[in-house]
Amino acid sequence: MTHIDLNADLGESFGRWTLGDDDALLEVVTSANVACGFHAGDPGVLRHACEGAAARGVVVGAQVGYRDLAGFGRRFLDLPPAELTDDVLYQIGALEGLARVAGTRVAYVKPHGALYNAIVHHEEQAAAVVEAVRSYDPTLPVLGLPGSAWLRLAEEAGLRTVQEAFADRAYTPEGTLVSRREAGAVLEDPDEIAARCVRIATEGTVTAVDGTEVAVDAASVCVHGDSPGAVRVARAVRSALEAAGVEPRPFVGAGPGA
Amino acid sequence: MTHIDLNADLGESFGRWTLGDDDALLEVVTSANVACGFHAGDPGVLRHACEGAAARGVVVGAQVGYRDLAGFGRRFLDLPPAELTDDVLYQIGALEGLARVAGTRVAYVKPHGALYNAIVHHEEQAAAVVEAVRSYDPTLPVLGLPGSAWLRLAEEAGLRTVQEAFADRAYTPEGTLVSRREAGAVLEDPDEIAARCVRIATEGTVTAVDGTEVAVDAASVCVHGDSPGAVRVARAVRSALEAAGVEPRPFVGAGPGA
Amino acid sequence: MTHIDLNADLGESFGRWTLGDDDALLEVVTSANVACGFHAGDPGVLRHACEGAAARGVVVGAQVGYRDLAGFGRRFLDLPPAELTDDVLYQIGALEGLARVAGTRVAYVKPHGALYNAIVHHEEQAAAVVEAVRSYDPTLPVLGLPGSAWLRLAEEAGLRTVQEAFADRAYTPEGTLVSRREAGAVLEDPDEIAARCVRIATEGTVTAVDGTEVAVDAASVCVHGDSPGAVRVARAVRSALEAAGVEPRPFVGAGPGA
Amino acid sequence: MTHIDLNADLGESFGRWTLGDDDALLEVVTSANVACGFHAGDPGVLRHACEGAAARGVVVGAQVGYRDLAGFGRRFLDLPPAELTDDVLYQIGALEGLARVAGTRVAYVKPHGALYNAIVHHEEQAAAVVEAVRSYDPTLPVLGLPGSAWLRLAEEAGLRTVQEAFADRAYTPEGTLVSRREAGAVLEDPDEIAARCVRIATEGTVTAVDGTEVAVDAASVCVHGDSPGAVRVARAVRSALEAAGVEPRPFVGAGPGA
Repeated sequence: MTHIDLNADLGESFGRWTLGDDDALLEVVTSANVACGFHAGDPGVLRHACEGAAARGVVVGAQVGYRDLAGFGRRFLDLPPAELTDDVLYQIGALEGLARVAGTRVAYVKPHGALYNAIVHHEEQAAAVVEAVRSYDPTLPVLGLPGSAWLRLAEEAGLRTVQEAFADRAYTPEGTLVSRREAGAVLEDPDEIAARCVRIATEGTVTAVDGTEVAVDAASVCVHGDSPGAVRVARAVRSALEAAGVEPRPFVGAGPGA
Repeated sequence: MTHIDLNADLGESFGRWTLGDDDALLEVVTSANVACGFHAGDPGVLRHACEGAAARGVVVGAQVGYRDLAGFGRRFLDLPPAELTDDVLYQIGALEGLARVAGTRVAYVKPHGALYNAIVHHEEQAAAVVEAVRSYDPTLPVLGLPGSAWLRLAEEAGLRTVQEAFADRAYTPEGTLVSRREAGAVLEDPDEIAARCVRIATEGTVTAVDGTEVAVDAASVCVHGDSPGAVRVARAVRSALEAAGVEPRPFVGAGPGA
Repeated sequence: MTHIDLNADLGESFGRWTLGDDDALLEVVTSANVACGFHAGDPGVLRHACEGAAARGVVVGAQVGYRDLAGFGRRFLDLPPAELTDDVLYQIGALEGLARVAGTRVAYVKPHGALYNAIVHHEEQAAAVVEAVRSYDPTLPVLGLPGSAWLRLAEEAGLRTVQEAFADRAYTPEGTLVSRREAGAVLEDPDEIAARCVRIATEGTVTAVDGTEVAVDAASVCVHGDSPGAVRVARAVRSALEAAGVEPRPFVGAGPGA
Repeated sequence: MTHIDLNADLGESFGRWTLGDDDALLEVVTSANVACGFHAGDPGVLRHACEGAAARGVVVGAQVGYRDLAGFGRRFLDLPPAELTDDVLYQIGALEGLARVAGTRVAYVKPHGALYNAIVHHEEQAAAVVEAVRSYDPTLPVLGLPGSAWLRLAEEAGLRTVQEAFADRAYTPEGTLVSRREAGAVLEDPDEIAARCVRIATEGTVTAVDGTEVAVDAASVCVHGDSPGAVRVARAVRSALEAAGVEPRPFVGAGPGA
């Protein structure tokens, strides 16, 4: 039976401020990218997300980011690679502490926001995050954008790499994402997004903005967690996948020996 | 042969700001209370302290505190117990992440500053920190003040408790510390401090402010790390102990099965 | 014509996190307690709130709080009075900077959350906040709870004090607020809340939980900004006041010479 | 009589962490670039610096920076211009609040660290800081590097611009600073630094690394505040200037009408 992972960002509330509906999303996704406190997420939020994930068999990943609460980790920060490595280690460990008491563990790493975007091309920062994962636990898979320096360097370092596609983003004929600055870059119709997910999972293709078919090799599909209709879209995606006989299944197990 | 542990606070620098001389202190102490980023310590500082400790066979403990960089964790914060538990778990995990890549681990927990003082009497906060340690790893010893709610509740929860004495603090005839607000509360003469340590280690007594002898049952002696003459005092203490045939030895091993 | 001020907390979003509907509330209130960045509010949020207030003739007050983003300023922080004074000055000045470019100014001061509650009884902290206002600008009025140390000490320092009532809180027969921990402490029915406001404005009385009538001397009524039905309640209050011939009017002018 | 301004960074301690010797530097400089809390400086530190400056007739400037305590504002942050404008306004206002109670005022603006370096070339960020100053008070002078986008755009916006030279930095034959990454970029001998300052003040020239004489048009010389021998160097500079008949004099007055 065909299967694919569904991942979303969770744990991005902070103190008095709520963002996204973690409990609802945990009913849909198979992998939860839980924030680690540097761009979002206080310890109580992280714990709640981990407990919810553990209760539902959803796998927890460390969604590491720049130390920038005010900017939600969406602003590039030009920090020295060694500092970035240590910042990532700190975040993974912190989330691990809360995952542990929630009965689960950090099972993969996916960078967030501006860091995610930076390490598509920024070799030094990409290498710094890779070094953090490798030195922490070389068996941890890393999740990211196909063709990124991040995944290439991770693979060279011996890490397992997992490619993701984006359910609600338009693709160029070259298979890259259309910039958010362009019209039509972000899809909003739940049915259309769901249908694209099914094709990614079953055929490994997506229709680009010019109508051509593009190959998309992805073991996971990212559904967004904090947009207004996020939960509705995520549910549509999951339903469509199941209706098409595609099993939503995490790409890594939640247990230590997984 | 008689032995005693020497502990000090380390890892309390932050970014551009240096505090204490971690490398020098690591030559003297047997247990390092490493800050965890909430009251002090950035990830690079924590890693450096852990690496230094690992290289010298010094045991690493998590020096957890209130989330209060501006106040260095020295201001009581009246947070709900559940939040405190999660804050402590986050800190232990974060330090563990860096200890792990440094080749060591978090081997005990000692609260810092206002939290240390609060949980001498504050039952709810004491229980919250105990709950953090117990749920994270019930084999982790906890270090604290004899007679504190913290150690009493930890013991009731089945944790191993370790009592500490203060090398540079005056004691009342009842065996408690003289308040810092009173004259003579803090000793400064390295030789006097060292001599008191030797008596604590060999006889289990200290001379109180009124000249009476008081029993002090302590498996560890705290030497301060950030006062001007800190390193000099610490060295005097260690030399005097060794001269008296007392071996400085950690109260717990650095390894997983210790 | 009878008149009364309506105040609400604004500017409490932070970065990616939105809280409350500032624009909607600014259509209703006459005084905006704008957060200052220590418990909530980033500079862009503060500026937007000030600009919205200026455009509608709403007066801006500095809603100063403890430096505690993670706790939203709702956790008592036991800081030395001199530090609190400086923290308050920093916050007033920061908001003033943004108010200035928005074409308005900080026209009064109202402490937030745990600080608001602390200085009802905590003399040292109350005096510290008073000292901040007095040294910054002794013509700035202060807003607070009738009977609080805060207003008493402010008055003794020569500041103009303004008493507020709470539209959605139950009162004891003694005229104090029923603790939030008790059932029925917070009212939710917009019509009931509105009717109470009208009586506060026109008769200076409120019906206590035991049915007795209690005198409430208030020049301002606080409507809450961040609860689910906040805007609806605020609109009901304003409509009811206007229908009863009570003019919503700020207690101080927005201009320098007001 | 010839005169020149001496400026240095102050107010860069934070909570428990001390950096630099503000009181000693205030005996030497004529303009104090006081940190504003985003990269360094807590409210108490800012107030102390302002009070010290006011007592000695030293002029206070706002040393604005990126919101990055962990990186001390030394890491480029790619934030949207509008956010940067508001961040700068917040900082100027905050410092103004404390300057006001100290009996002085913010009399000029000088960006710090990575922001200082960024706006030498980064047009959008330079324009954003200019816009902050212009909208806050168009009579405030701005201090910066000759040839920078920052000073060019400030001038175009109608602000008074003041150029500074660096007492302890090597210059290229083109009159720009030798990169810190190159050997010999930073001078350390107090006498040599002092002699260079005298020539900058009296002749408007400096000897470049290749031995050629370069014109340096500067109304202010920056002496560094946080290096080990900072105070000694600063004193040597002032003494040499005075011995050469050059009066250390601020480029702007401390009073409102200055």
